[in-house]
Amino acid sequence: MDFLTPLWGVGAGVLGLLVAVFFASSVLKENPGNSRMQEISKAIQEGAMAYLNRQYRTLIPIAVLIFVVLFIFKDWQVAVSFMVGAVSSGIAGYVGMGITTRANCRTTEAARTSLNKALGVSFRAGAVMGMSVAGLGLLGVAGLFLLFGNAETINSFAFGASAIALFARVGGGIYTKAADVGADLVGKVEAGIPEDDPRNPAVIADNVGDNVGDTAGMGADLFESYAATTIAGMLIGFSVFKGHGAGELLFILMGAIGIISSILASFLVRTGENANPQTALNKGLWGTNLLTALGSYALVHLLLPASYDTGSVVLTPNKVFIAVICGLVVNILIGLITEYYTSNNKKPAQSIAQASLTGPATNLITGMAVGLKSTALPVITICAATMISFSVAGVYGIAVAAMAMLSTAGMIVAIDSFGPVADNAGGIAEMAELEPSVRKTTDKLDAVGNTTAAVAKGFAIGSAALTALALFNAFAELAELHSIDILVPKTIVGLFIGGGLPFLFSAFAMEAVGKAAFEMIGEVRRQFKEIPGLMEGKAKPDYAACVDISTKAAIRQMIIPGLLAVGTPVLVGFGLGKSAMGGMLAGCTVAGFLLAIYMANAGGAWDNAKKYIEAGNLGGKGTDAHAAAVIGDTVGDPFKDTAGPSLNALIKVMGTISLIIAPFLS
Amino acid sequence: MDFLTPLWGVGAGVLGLLVAVFFASSVLKENPGNSRMQEISKAIQEGAMAYLNRQYRTLIPIAVLIFVVLFIFKDWQVAVSFMVGAVSSGIAGYVGMGITTRANCRTTEAARTSLNKALGVSFRAGAVMGMSVAGLGLLGVAGLFLLFGNAETINSFAFGASAIALFARVGGGIYTKAADVGADLVGKVEAGIPEDDPRNPAVIADNVGDNVGDTAGMGADLFESYAATTIAGMLIGFSVFKGHGAGELLFILMGAIGIISSILASFLVRTGENANPQTALNKGLWGTNLLTALGSYALVHLLLPASYDTGSVVLTPNKVFIAVICGLVVNILIGLITEYYTSNNKKPAQSIAQASLTGPATNLITGMAVGLKSTALPVITICAATMISFSVAGVYGIAVAAMAMLSTAGMIVAIDSFGPVADNAGGIAEMAELEPSVRKTTDKLDAVGNTTAAVAKGFAIGSAALTALALFNAFAELAELHSIDILVPKTIVGLFIGGGLPFLFSAFAMEAVGKAAFEMIGEVRRQFKEIPGLMEGKAKPDYAACVDISTKAAIRQMIIPGLLAVGTPVLVGFGLGKSAMGGMLAGCTVAGFLLAIYMANAGGAWDNAKKYIEAGNLGGKGTDAHAAAVIGDTVGDPFKDTAGPSLNALIKVMGTISLIIAPFLS
Repeated sequence: MDFLTPLWGVGAGVLGLLVAVFFASSVLKENPGNSRMQEISKAIQEGAMAYLNRQYRTLIPIAVLIFVVLFIFKDWQVAVSFMVGAVSSGIAGYVGMGITTRANCRTTEAARTSLNKALGVSFRAGAVMGMSVAGLGLLGVAGLFLLFGNAETINSFAFGASAIALFARVGGGIYTKAADVGADLVGKVEAGIPEDDPRNPAVIADNVGDNVGDTAGMGADLFESYAATTIAGMLIGFSVFKGHGAGELLFILMGAIGIISSILASFLVRTGENANPQTALNKGLWGTNLLTALGSYALVHLLLPASYDTGSVVLTPNKVFIAVICGLVVNILIGLITEYYTSNNKKPAQSIAQASLTGPATNLITGMAVGLKSTALPVITICAATMISFSVAGVYGIAVAAMAMLSTAGMIVAIDSFGPVADNAGGIAEMAELEPSVRKTTDKLDAVGNTTAAVAKGFAIGSAALTALALFNAFAELAELHSIDILVPKTIVGLFIGGGLPFLFSAFAMEAVGKAAFEMIGEVRRQFKEIPGLMEGKAKPDYAACVDISTKAAIRQMIIPGLLAVGTPVLVGFGLGKSAMGGMLAGCTVAGFLLAIYMANAGGAWDNAKKYIEAGNLGGKGTDAHAAAVIGDTVGDPFKDTAGPSLNALIKVMGTISLIIAPFLS
Repeated sequence: MDFLTPLWGVGAGVLGLLVAVFFASSVLKENPGNSRMQEISKAIQEGAMAYLNRQYRTLIPIAVLIFVVLFIFKDWQVAVSFMVGAVSSGIAGYVGMGITTRANCRTTEAARTSLNKALGVSFRAGAVMGMSVAGLGLLGVAGLFLLFGNAETINSFAFGASAIALFARVGGGIYTKAADVGADLVGKVEAGIPEDDPRNPAVIADNVGDNVGDTAGMGADLFESYAATTIAGMLIGFSVFKGHGAGELLFILMGAIGIISSILASFLVRTGENANPQTALNKGLWGTNLLTALGSYALVHLLLPASYDTGSVVLTPNKVFIAVICGLVVNILIGLITEYYTSNNKKPAQSIAQASLTGPATNLITGMAVGLKSTALPVITICAATMISFSVAGVYGIAVAAMAMLSTAGMIVAIDSFGPVADNAGGIAEMAELEPSVRKTTDKLDAVGNTTAAVAKGFAIGSAALTALALFNAFAELAELHSIDILVPKTIVGLFIGGGLPFLFSAFAMEAVGKAAFEMIGEVRRQFKEIPGLMEGKAKPDYAACVDISTKAAIRQMIIPGLLAVGTPVLVGFGLGKSAMGGMLAGCTVAGFLLAIYMANAGGAWDNAKKYIEAGNLGGKGTDAHAAAVIGDTVGDPFKDTAGPSLNALIKVMGTISLIIAPFLS
């Protein structure tokens, strides 16, 4: 282990990217289907790219401004690291979306012959995104560390990733739900045409939204967590090991192990024709966790000294390994808890379905109760992991647990991004009017996609909490705070402000969806009325107009919440001082974590309560109970896909900004 | 100022009670109306008393158990103080409810001749509750302090008040909403009969619920805040002034000034026949604030030394007076903010009404956004008050600000309890089939009652936050904590657990309403079907059966959340230590405060959005928009009247328990 050890990280990052290229070319070699299918896929591609172009074009001035500020007030290395983080996040988004939006028609075509083949195409497409995220993340951190030599300089890489993630989450969340709510309320409810019907003017926007929200948004979110956790861990490792390089290098090498584990495990993802594809994805997930555990065990023994006294705790490789296990167990538990509270095979979602029998009001009250209640177990899980990893390895243990969890991000993003591909594939089967057996195959994949989306959401929230804790401790190191005392009124004021931010931030996100959906509804109604022959299928709707409404609304409405998130910590930090800043970080993490879980799980449970009824239970489709459940699902949409996920980005961006301004605060 | 100074507090407490007796006898002298009106009023009385009896009967074993535990582990004085607190809260509840449920028919009768007379009867009835709460609160604190001589012994008085308030809030909240939702969903929506129609089997339970929730629940809530703030202030005063008696006595004497101000200002409450009765109540409210400010100015100059160095800040009478002003300004600002976000004359509620045009889903999304957004200004208000009062007078200043706010509780409870009387009076006018002009007069009062209820809710939440901050500081004193450091993982774990509790607690409250309403709906449907001639008005419904369902459900379902609230701090305190306990108090205060405001204001805004449409806007009653708004209102009911108010009790009971166990914690 020497100065060149980070090269292992660079190597693993490059390996991840090479695998991404390999998967991408293998996906693109597949048959893209007939011309109608290709045409639809192309419309989705163009919509998605138009959105991404517009999003990044809007973000360039903001990024340049921050670059200049950092250049003037810090130095060129910090400014460059920031830009590399921002640009890497953007590249991961473009590459991933470029492939997933091309894989959709290929998955549909594959579904005509075999379930396993369709799974293969869609999973490999997701893996392109997964490997791009993990590969670019590790390459960036390790490469910059190799160049600039210390973690404090390159923490702006994480800030760059954060700033992009924040806007991508908020903008993507608004985009996808404006399109979804608009398409559903007018198409399904008013006009009575099925989901993904080509006559619905918002159908392309809706399919674009799945990619923009779930693929690009989630990818940026986890890229941010990945970068922030690695760097926060390195900062803590540097301080705890007082310059002994192993302390910080551990995080880069854990990242390398995670990437290699994800690559190996991805070859386990294959299914039989009559098997449940969930099993195949579970193999990938469990395989990654297992390989990461094994690799980390070897790593801590090879890298760390047999015993090291930090002053407050004596570290041994085995103790650090316990912290690794804590992170991986959180990984699994949060997924299981999320699945319990949202799956339509389980009591919570079924109780919401039951409550739909007495109308939408009781459906909503029960759904909120389920969401509120679902916060308890994740809180206990995070608390237990924090306590255990701290008791074995101090603050270093908390950072290691966070890194262990995040090191599996490549696989998590892969199985999450697979979802929108399968969903789009079903949409294309519908719109291209293929034989019903194709839709049946894609529906199987789509159902699995809903579960993996829930698991990934749980992962994103849980890892955001651990990342935020690591950032919080790194902030204290950089700000030279030896205690953050909540008996000091400034700190408790910080706690209140931090706690209040997620509420205000979600309000903006919800309101934005409300406004954008309202516009979308107007446009869809207009097209149904004004385009002659549309309902009879003789004329084509103006898809582009709807894509444009979603795009414009998302870009316009992401600005205020974004500035709120970036501006508040700067104001609080410079206005009230570092102790208030510490209180704010803690308050925002706690309240943001709780609200995010509440919103994600309530939304997921409402969605599946509706699906439970649609599967023929409690009277099935067309009953009053079903109508009530549709209302619950619609309310849940901005909960689970806009406000909830945006909170992950919020709590992390607070932390990465705090690292940047820490040395300036008094 | 000497040992006997607390006698002034005893005197003012007794004066408050004498005024309560005077108002009570003046109300009872009024004409109770015709036999039908008396019969209905009697049914409400009996239902309310049946509930109170049952509630307290259930609480006796719990109170006795705590009494015994305190007797064994602390001493007899602590145990006795606890019991006095619990019993006083109970007495205030019985007395207040006894009068308000007798004043309803008298208000109806008065409304036949004059608006001013009806206002007089209903306001004086509310003032009985107000004076009982403030009078018993001050009498208890001052009397026990006179007997036992130190604030630490008698802090169990506040705990006694807290324990009762917790169950009263949760139980009362479940009762009132089970009845309300049940009566509305079957009566108004399914059977299409108007509100308060005597054919509705749940109509008596609904009217009982107004008293049980708004009068008894709010009374117990503010009795608790009053007792807890006074005692927390005395503890802080004792410590800051190192035994110099003035420091603690100030709180008792501020209480005395508040009671006298409320009494004087209550004579300002009278209205012209064509004036808005709101103006009359505003005079009472502003008068109380003004007189309290004047009295406190004299008090601080008479009582406190001209200059006193606490070690961290030099106190002068004028600086302490600034803290008084902070408390009173919070009082006014929180009321105005609450009114802005919930009134149907203002943009937020109207935007919800507007969103109802596109159905229940957009109504709900907009309502939640309004509620979430409404947390920002109260957070800023509380933060500003904390910072200013601390900067002028240290921790002592925070306690003084809280006490200043709470000293006006007599008037706040009076104008809040007036609401259910006016509401019931309208119900009786309807059920007794009086001339429409009577209902018109009571409707005027009822509309004002809705505003005062919102103001009182804001007051209850804001004062709960300040009370919790005072308790938090008092806890640190008693536990001899000189800092509560959130960089220590145990503290941050406490913060997470504390933050999670309000979420879990609200989940139980919402679920309880869902279940109880479900039972109520079943019973009302059964009666409509099985009692022949009911719909034609030829047979009477079985009111008692519905009263019984609400009572049983409320009692049964208040137990688990109650035990959760009482048990968690004990577990965390003894399991993780006092630093974790401190984190828990802070987390619970921040998250509880935010959730409570969100729920109260979203609920209030949904309610008024519906009323805005019912007033003829956006198409008025009977439209789809109205139906959507009714759904929003129904979802808001358990938000604003069950879960939200229960959170006030939760955050305070945490604090009062922490004071009891503080000396035992390590």
